[in-house]
Amino acid sequence: MNTIVARLKIQDGKEDEALQVLKKMVADVEANEPGALAYLCHRSIDNPSEIVFFELYADDDASKAHRGTPHMAEFAAALPALFDLSQTKIERLERVGGVVRDSAAT
Amino acid sequence: MNTIVARLKIQDGKEDEALQVLKKMVADVEANEPGALAYLCHRSIDNPSEIVFFELYADDDASKAHRGTPHMAEFAAALPALFDLSQTKIERLERVGGVVRDSAAT
Repeated sequence: MNTIVARLKIQDGKEDEALQVLKKMVADVEANEPGALAYLCHRSIDNPSEIVFFELYADDDASKAHRGTPHMAEFAAALPALFDLSQTKIERLERVGGVVRDSAAT
Repeated sequence: MNTIVARLKIQDGKEDEALQVLKKMVADVEANEPGALAYLCHRSIDNPSEIVFFELYADDDASKAHRGTPHMAEFAAALPALFDLSQTKIERLERVGGVVRDSAAT
């Protein structure tokens, strides 16, 4: 398992366009990356310009493959015009414990 | 769906005891809260005193029930001696999109 929490900040006034790009990215990951066991994109309810990804990969290979996909290249190319990249944070996490139930997938 | 990312900072020298308390908490949630669809506790790899929970509840009732459980009361009582509560952050998230695969549960 390989877990990441990634944060992006949308530039003022770019919310709609950013959300389109984010939704395309998650659709591409769902369609093409079986090793991405969870790939969830959220907005902060209190700060809607804050985007929070929770990403769970089967292993390091799946995580590395994610970074090398064509859709990641396309997503990365779209970021500078829509996000304040000085605010980007990527945090690698080690699992202490917990559960994901089958019903989380539905 | 109701998603939370919660962060706790372990006090210096309290890592082992804090991890025991965290592991008991996640076991209690797994055993008693079917509405907690995902309840994952992590340490930051770069800052191991940083604890990051990713929590996914079926709905607001499941989230509210979580906060009212006996194991939450026990966990909350243990926190002040082990964590720097001035650093606690709880962030409520709205899903933009994404996937959790069945295989994430295994």
